[in-house]
Amino acid sequence: MGKGRLEAFSDGVLAIIITIMVLEMKVPHGASLSDLLPILPVFLSYVLSFVYVGIYWNNHHHMLHTSTNVTGAMLWANLHLLFWLSLFPFATGWMGQNHFAAVPTALYGVVLLMAAIAYYLLERAIIRAQEPDSILKKAIGRDLKGKLSPVVYVVAIVATLVSPYISEALYVGAALLWLIPDRRIESVLVRTEV
Amino acid sequence: MGKGRLEAFSDGVLAIIITIMVLEMKVPHGASLSDLLPILPVFLSYVLSFVYVGIYWNNHHHMLHTSTNVTGAMLWANLHLLFWLSLFPFATGWMGQNHFAAVPTALYGVVLLMAAIAYYLLERAIIRAQEPDSILKKAIGRDLKGKLSPVVYVVAIVATLVSPYISEALYVGAALLWLIPDRRIESVLVRTEV
Amino acid sequence: MGKGRLEAFSDGVLAIIITIMVLEMKVPHGASLSDLLPILPVFLSYVLSFVYVGIYWNNHHHMLHTSTNVTGAMLWANLHLLFWLSLFPFATGWMGQNHFAAVPTALYGVVLLMAAIAYYLLERAIIRAQEPDSILKKAIGRDLKGKLSPVVYVVAIVATLVSPYISEALYVGAALLWLIPDRRIESVLVRTEV
Amino acid sequence: MGKGRLEAFSDGVLAIIITIMVLEMKVPHGASLSDLLPILPVFLSYVLSFVYVGIYWNNHHHMLHTSTNVTGAMLWANLHLLFWLSLFPFATGWMGQNHFAAVPTALYGVVLLMAAIAYYLLERAIIRAQEPDSILKKAIGRDLKGKLSPVVYVVAIVATLVSPYISEALYVGAALLWLIPDRRIESVLVRTEV
Repeated sequence: MGKGRLEAFSDGVLAIIITIMVLEMKVPHGASLSDLLPILPVFLSYVLSFVYVGIYWNNHHHMLHTSTNVTGAMLWANLHLLFWLSLFPFATGWMGQNHFAAVPTALYGVVLLMAAIAYYLLERAIIRAQEPDSILKKAIGRDLKGKLSPVVYVVAIVATLVSPYISEALYVGAALLWLIPDRRIESVLVRTEV
Repeated sequence: MGKGRLEAFSDGVLAIIITIMVLEMKVPHGASLSDLLPILPVFLSYVLSFVYVGIYWNNHHHMLHTSTNVTGAMLWANLHLLFWLSLFPFATGWMGQNHFAAVPTALYGVVLLMAAIAYYLLERAIIRAQEPDSILKKAIGRDLKGKLSPVVYVVAIVATLVSPYISEALYVGAALLWLIPDRRIESVLVRTEV
Repeated sequence: MGKGRLEAFSDGVLAIIITIMVLEMKVPHGASLSDLLPILPVFLSYVLSFVYVGIYWNNHHHMLHTSTNVTGAMLWANLHLLFWLSLFPFATGWMGQNHFAAVPTALYGVVLLMAAIAYYLLERAIIRAQEPDSILKKAIGRDLKGKLSPVVYVVAIVATLVSPYISEALYVGAALLWLIPDRRIESVLVRTEV
Repeated sequence: MGKGRLEAFSDGVLAIIITIMVLEMKVPHGASLSDLLPILPVFLSYVLSFVYVGIYWNNHHHMLHTSTNVTGAMLWANLHLLFWLSLFPFATGWMGQNHFAAVPTALYGVVLLMAAIAYYLLERAIIRAQEPDSILKKAIGRDLKGKLSPVVYVVAIVATLVSPYISEALYVGAALLWLIPDRRIESVLVRTEV
């Protein structure tokens, strides 16, 4: 199987996920500014999830760029990733409509965590298909961001017991980690480690 | 007609089917873990259908890979397959929201059965277009899985009269049949036949 | 502009239209066979519209196949066609949920008629871009089906005043006209004209 | 990263946006013509937004056509544009369902304005990637339409304080500005400036 159709299918699913999330933002009945107010948390959740799906689409693209052949393991690892990403609209809607309550915020973190694990498994499947001379393995290096993100999500899930706002801050922070161009943040992280 | 646009259209439809199914999982009003409980059967149905659409996408891809030209019969056989697959969100939602009640579980089996028949008809249409030296015909061989699946679905539909949980187990079993890599399961099946 | 992206965008829109139509078939609350009964007209409307979108996708593909360059007029004629096709889910849902009542059945015919006119305008735009030696012009010939369909739709719209079932029969008939392979039906039509 | 997948992803998102907007036009319960009447403003809003998304798709295509490589800045500028366009269904539905009330009409203008700004930022990102010899920079020239549109949107947003119908007229006018073929309107604008 060529990777063209794998990319096309993934693009299709990601494009639909990113777009149907907005359907959770129900059109309010009233026509005044105050009618928009209860939607604000849903909107903010939507922005956060939009950025996350954007990051996944971007990284997914770069990762597959290094690959030439598609194995069965890659195919199912990819579907597994798409499965967890497909739960974004549900988790986003539940968190937003309940104004960042503790349990929905924790569930959002669980979906983020599972997606991060699924992404890691896809990475492994691609590297295994490229061994012994994997370009992807060299490209990701020590993969500090990839290892840090799941830890942040776990901390955020636990933090919902204290205050879900700490968790939200952690979700935003982990997203920024990926948004800021790679090399700079990595060198920062390396220095922090020392 | 080239097969590129047939693949692209099928990918688009499959990507949308797999993603809008999640919309049947309505965001609950409460914000506690117990509010998620009634959604659990919908979630489990979603997982099952996600795997089935994934299997169809995978097999569809391999099947079209063997083909070079697209006939009118192939085109309509493909649309016929997409039609039955497009009923997955409805059948999944009905089965999940009724917590695996007998009739919805039977309808789910009917949709699986019709999709399997539609897939078989598409296979035939491609083989006819490739005759007398069909690569696909050689590739599918005796096609034990393709012949076993519809039988499993029929048994599962009848089994809803006894207990829908037997039917669910059969649907899961038939999905696993396709998930486990080909050669191993086929050799097992061949041995069982002896 | 190359025609690749025009085809890809049209495929995307058509794939979404054909799939979201199924969302008008709302999952019923009860779990018995009798709960499916009120959905039957929605299901039948869905089947009809699925076939129509399938025909449009098929013909659209063949039509663009003859074309190499994309003019501004073609681009907007194409968007105009997609606009009327995008009203299929609404018209299908209204007709089905009202069990083929007169006015919704007439509106369905109006949408079919406008889509047929939009298709004709796109055909003209492509032919103008290919003049004086248009392949498409030769390919469609006298275009009996293209000229007959709008007449059938107009008759069907008027017939809703008598009985919407006559109109439904005409919609089904016009769809069959396009489904049956070209040459045979055309030769039949030619003979009828004599 | 090649631009192929950027185009494909954008096409997917735009195709979904343009199609799910129609879902805001809820199927009415009654079956008479008078039941369609309250939907008329939603329909008109839908037509306007359909034309706008069509214009964006068209311009987006031409703009990327001049580009060969994709930078990180372009990628995120593109996602930023898609984000604002993804709010079209919400803004369209709110404006239509409230029959062009002042606040929803203003919000619609805000979304148009933000999309125009996002489009401009994407244009800049592409030009920066092409410097010093940017084809896009030459192609857009003084970009009168690009500079005029945001001004029109701001005026329209303020005009909702007087009458939202003035705003609607301005939104329609700005759309027509883009629909009418380029050279003619630009020469008109140039003459008006003198």
